[in-house]
Amino acid sequence: MLNCAVIGATGYTGVELIKILLHHSYARISALTTRQQESFPVQSLIPTLAADINLEIRSHSFSELKRSSDVFFLCLPHTEAMKTAEKLRRAGKIVIDLSADLRLRDARVYEKWYGTRHVAPGVLKEAVYGLPEFFRKQIRGAKMIANPGCYPTGAALGIGPLVKAGLVETDDIIIDAKSGVSGAGKKLNMTTQFYELDNNFYAYRVGRHQHTPEIEQTLSQVAGRNVSVTFVPHLLPVDRGILSTIYLRRKKKAGHEKVLAAFQTAYAKEPFVRLKAPGQFPALRDVQHTNYCDIGVLSDPKSDRIVVVTALDNLLKGASGQAIQNLNVCFGFPEREGLSSW
Amino acid sequence: MLNCAVIGATGYTGVELIKILLHHSYARISALTTRQQESFPVQSLIPTLAADINLEIRSHSFSELKRSSDVFFLCLPHTEAMKTAEKLRRAGKIVIDLSADLRLRDARVYEKWYGTRHVAPGVLKEAVYGLPEFFRKQIRGAKMIANPGCYPTGAALGIGPLVKAGLVETDDIIIDAKSGVSGAGKKLNMTTQFYELDNNFYAYRVGRHQHTPEIEQTLSQVAGRNVSVTFVPHLLPVDRGILSTIYLRRKKKAGHEKVLAAFQTAYAKEPFVRLKAPGQFPALRDVQHTNYCDIGVLSDPKSDRIVVVTALDNLLKGASGQAIQNLNVCFGFPEREGLSSW
Amino acid sequence: MLNCAVIGATGYTGVELIKILLHHSYARISALTTRQQESFPVQSLIPTLAADINLEIRSHSFSELKRSSDVFFLCLPHTEAMKTAEKLRRAGKIVIDLSADLRLRDARVYEKWYGTRHVAPGVLKEAVYGLPEFFRKQIRGAKMIANPGCYPTGAALGIGPLVKAGLVETDDIIIDAKSGVSGAGKKLNMTTQFYELDNNFYAYRVGRHQHTPEIEQTLSQVAGRNVSVTFVPHLLPVDRGILSTIYLRRKKKAGHEKVLAAFQTAYAKEPFVRLKAPGQFPALRDVQHTNYCDIGVLSDPKSDRIVVVTALDNLLKGASGQAIQNLNVCFGFPEREGLSSW
Amino acid sequence: MLNCAVIGATGYTGVELIKILLHHSYARISALTTRQQESFPVQSLIPTLAADINLEIRSHSFSELKRSSDVFFLCLPHTEAMKTAEKLRRAGKIVIDLSADLRLRDARVYEKWYGTRHVAPGVLKEAVYGLPEFFRKQIRGAKMIANPGCYPTGAALGIGPLVKAGLVETDDIIIDAKSGVSGAGKKLNMTTQFYELDNNFYAYRVGRHQHTPEIEQTLSQVAGRNVSVTFVPHLLPVDRGILSTIYLRRKKKAGHEKVLAAFQTAYAKEPFVRLKAPGQFPALRDVQHTNYCDIGVLSDPKSDRIVVVTALDNLLKGASGQAIQNLNVCFGFPEREGLSSW
Repeated sequence: MLNCAVIGATGYTGVELIKILLHHSYARISALTTRQQESFPVQSLIPTLAADINLEIRSHSFSELKRSSDVFFLCLPHTEAMKTAEKLRRAGKIVIDLSADLRLRDARVYEKWYGTRHVAPGVLKEAVYGLPEFFRKQIRGAKMIANPGCYPTGAALGIGPLVKAGLVETDDIIIDAKSGVSGAGKKLNMTTQFYELDNNFYAYRVGRHQHTPEIEQTLSQVAGRNVSVTFVPHLLPVDRGILSTIYLRRKKKAGHEKVLAAFQTAYAKEPFVRLKAPGQFPALRDVQHTNYCDIGVLSDPKSDRIVVVTALDNLLKGASGQAIQNLNVCFGFPEREGLSSW
Repeated sequence: MLNCAVIGATGYTGVELIKILLHHSYARISALTTRQQESFPVQSLIPTLAADINLEIRSHSFSELKRSSDVFFLCLPHTEAMKTAEKLRRAGKIVIDLSADLRLRDARVYEKWYGTRHVAPGVLKEAVYGLPEFFRKQIRGAKMIANPGCYPTGAALGIGPLVKAGLVETDDIIIDAKSGVSGAGKKLNMTTQFYELDNNFYAYRVGRHQHTPEIEQTLSQVAGRNVSVTFVPHLLPVDRGILSTIYLRRKKKAGHEKVLAAFQTAYAKEPFVRLKAPGQFPALRDVQHTNYCDIGVLSDPKSDRIVVVTALDNLLKGASGQAIQNLNVCFGFPEREGLSSW
Repeated sequence: MLNCAVIGATGYTGVELIKILLHHSYARISALTTRQQESFPVQSLIPTLAADINLEIRSHSFSELKRSSDVFFLCLPHTEAMKTAEKLRRAGKIVIDLSADLRLRDARVYEKWYGTRHVAPGVLKEAVYGLPEFFRKQIRGAKMIANPGCYPTGAALGIGPLVKAGLVETDDIIIDAKSGVSGAGKKLNMTTQFYELDNNFYAYRVGRHQHTPEIEQTLSQVAGRNVSVTFVPHLLPVDRGILSTIYLRRKKKAGHEKVLAAFQTAYAKEPFVRLKAPGQFPALRDVQHTNYCDIGVLSDPKSDRIVVVTALDNLLKGASGQAIQNLNVCFGFPEREGLSSW
Repeated sequence: MLNCAVIGATGYTGVELIKILLHHSYARISALTTRQQESFPVQSLIPTLAADINLEIRSHSFSELKRSSDVFFLCLPHTEAMKTAEKLRRAGKIVIDLSADLRLRDARVYEKWYGTRHVAPGVLKEAVYGLPEFFRKQIRGAKMIANPGCYPTGAALGIGPLVKAGLVETDDIIIDAKSGVSGAGKKLNMTTQFYELDNNFYAYRVGRHQHTPEIEQTLSQVAGRNVSVTFVPHLLPVDRGILSTIYLRRKKKAGHEKVLAAFQTAYAKEPFVRLKAPGQFPALRDVQHTNYCDIGVLSDPKSDRIVVVTALDNLLKGASGQAIQNLNVCFGFPEREGLSSW
């Protein structure tokens, strides 16, 4: 059994990691940390858990963590994550980081979009981007994995096959994304109070969301050429889930069949991507509480426009589920281990 | 006082018309009709109304309606509306139709998108499209007004100024629209049951929604040339409101300032369109229960993409509020009469 | 026109007061105060308002307020309200206080249930409890009005007629109340974040809610004898509205007809209480955005149990609407002024 | 492996049974039936299921069912269930019925409250009431199990220990229950449309809900004497879950400690009842998607009132979860099998 620590276990992604690890056949929870002074049982955090699970959430010293754990899931605010990641790597530990700190190759791009210094640029070279559908080989045996952002996962899975196959214009891509509120994390915020969000809906950070460079970096790598996107996120009065409606322009040579074939080729063997039948499109309900990304594609026969709709659970395929999928790939476990859904 | 009948008063748009007309200074309710056998007081339909309002909803004979009423708001299913409109026009009555039956100039286009015969093509010539921001002159003194669809109102107000000023490519327009559930009307439907819709979200009729030709017809008329759009509607777990995120491509000559100026010129004197300050975008909450359409514009300086976000209440500016606005324009009443909001 | 100041205008009750006062025929807004440094237009707080309303929310000096305003609505946290009320009374101003500070006659009871000292016990003697249905005479011409709590209003209106008529046991009353989230005010709270409250429901402060003594004080006064209640509040995933299900035990002599007659006698002339027909019970929807309290009564013929259900909007009849009703009663304005609903 | 058929698999309880049975170690799904003409894969009903699960929902002949299956879960409308149950028993099959048809011992009581004839009164003698916490012995090896109603489960678990121990008056019990919308089943209904229910809340069937006699029958059996209750259900704008707030009157002799001891004694070894710590009460969130019933108790020291709050998931402990628990008890499987929760 692999000893896994969840660092910063009390947020929404920590809760999902705990739930999955409790059912994992090859990994066990060795530490659940918090910066709060008082320790408390995991049932205080997750009241649905059975009473006979004995796990405590508490502060741990670094030396204690070094002894107890081999793999570290970091659920920390950005800027904190990079420091912890660096320290853990020096101690020879495996790191799967759910923050944004290790995702962007270029520290300057990070500094521009996140508005803060990157104090551990050294780790960026070692970090592998943990999107198994496109980077499975690199993830196998990796020491440090940058778990992708929730929006970038939905965008990359919907666009990747098309730019990889060279079927679309790479400078004419629009991502209109709609996220449930847990995407914002568990911090107190007036805009996410029930009274403010219920029955409401709006776009935010129009044209300037910090996930934009991550999307472009991933797609450029997949395409082997520069890809740029227009990305507009919206906030839904919904607990969890992201639905992205993506608009692309087909190249002349790219017929309807080639478009569909690109998706089938890319995902035929993928355990967590499901293509909808022609004319059908995914709903958040289909993927909530699962690690699936569902994809529907319309290649309009009477124009050169392609519409791709992707849906995923931002806390699972968009965060903790994908982190476990990365764990499974990294260690050679069956990829669905801990992630089977009903 | 103008005598106004609401034909088909029990649906969601009927309720909103009743609420507004009860506060209107120059119009009174002369008849509220239903096809149900039993008559009932208006308070059964709208429990928030005071007890001392004496209005009955019941079936009316045509001759009774002819005697009692001068203006007819039609809240009927499509195909029924056109027959009633024709009959009322023959009787010399003023008709404001909230269905889709009078909106499309070409009966063949109607038949293609609505999948049913247009049995009263004669009325199409007489009907005026009731979008005051672009067709106020024609609405003045009109005998028959086709009240615009909810999606087309949000789309036309967001795109109209740009195609009118010739600032954008007219074949590269994407409308990603999200609607609250009342847009579907008051008919029973499994997909709009609370259990099915709550916490859910999805796209529907992707690339084939029947409002597409109405949007293109209106914009083509405003532009003076052919305009085509990609239109994808989505269903929100929200009572009311439509938010449309619109993506356009700026022509070379169209600088940032020209784009903003086009909106300011178009709407400076409009009582029901509000432009957001630069960098700000509307929320559904801002316009629910009002007749406003709020608009935010991003003209991206580093690309040729323009993003326009419009928000309105589908039951008011997208239906009954606009119908009253049309009444006010038609009869020369102050345009805000009955529509002031807090 | 009466000059009215709203002190602490940025909370949920302040917003409702502003909306009503903007439509009031005999009162105008003379000041809207906040403790925030920066002033801002009322439209920032209430985006649905028309642009041509010119009102600023800003900090005001006390001498400025003394000059500008005659009536003061206090929307302040408890303990702050009592100090301001005392100061304003010394300056000869009329005070309508929406906090709990002036409601309990006995400062010791206040201190026990609110866990803080009452630093202005002198004001308690002068304050009139502003529940017009039972204390209209005292409210007329009052100088200081303690606006009732939201739960106490729904409880008192449902129980008052029965204890006044001596039809029920006064020591066997259960109030099971369910409130929308705005009852908790606009303060940031983890439990009222959308993710935490949506699809959730629970009882809180079971048997120890601070509104209990206010309910008992009011009912004891109405009954002319000691009344005690069991009060259990619950939190609904709903914006606004309180529904209280009240269980009482009928005295032997109290027949079914007497029970119903007690309600009819009490409320026949009341502008804001509506009795449901026998067998019918109110829904939150019927009273949201109105100043009504709707009441349904079941006097079970086969037992001695009476069930009363009351519904009101906690921000209107439970707060700001009732405050305006008190203003109208106090100054002899028509009682519905500003409070008509559609 | 036990071969289990779900008869009427397309409703909400059918879906939950399928999800559980797919993870059960000793039972397998042998048939999923519908009256619809067309067969369809289980993924159409439950889109979150993995693609490699091969199960079809279709109509089955009775002889086919007799061959394929040993245990039958009936998810049928009432009146249909009793006929099918009778037929299956004659064929020697084990029946677990989720309808109300087998719950009431006295066919006349059924006919009074359900307003329809009981056409198979013979089965009532054989049916065992499937509430394991009170009737585990009878359930072991039973041939026909009447699975309890959702409201009766929450009521009986909250009241049972007190009437069994003789600590409360048996004619002074009030159950104020609040249910999520799935309790009404999957039938189309105007009152459960999103637009009608969202932000709404109300009591229904006040004093005349058909679950009343079931609650009284169960409690009378547990108490060994006649128990009567006042039962008022309410509808929550929530997907799933029932929270019941129960008010009882303590007998003189029944001290605070005895009350708490009664619950501890009753539930110390129960796998699916969890007692909250003193002063704490359950939330729907704690039990949704689990088979738990959580219970909080207040024995008011200064009065003779006891308040008990119970929470459960109406589709699990209130229906399908309890049906599986009954299966496990009946066949001697570990009682938590298939029902472990995270």
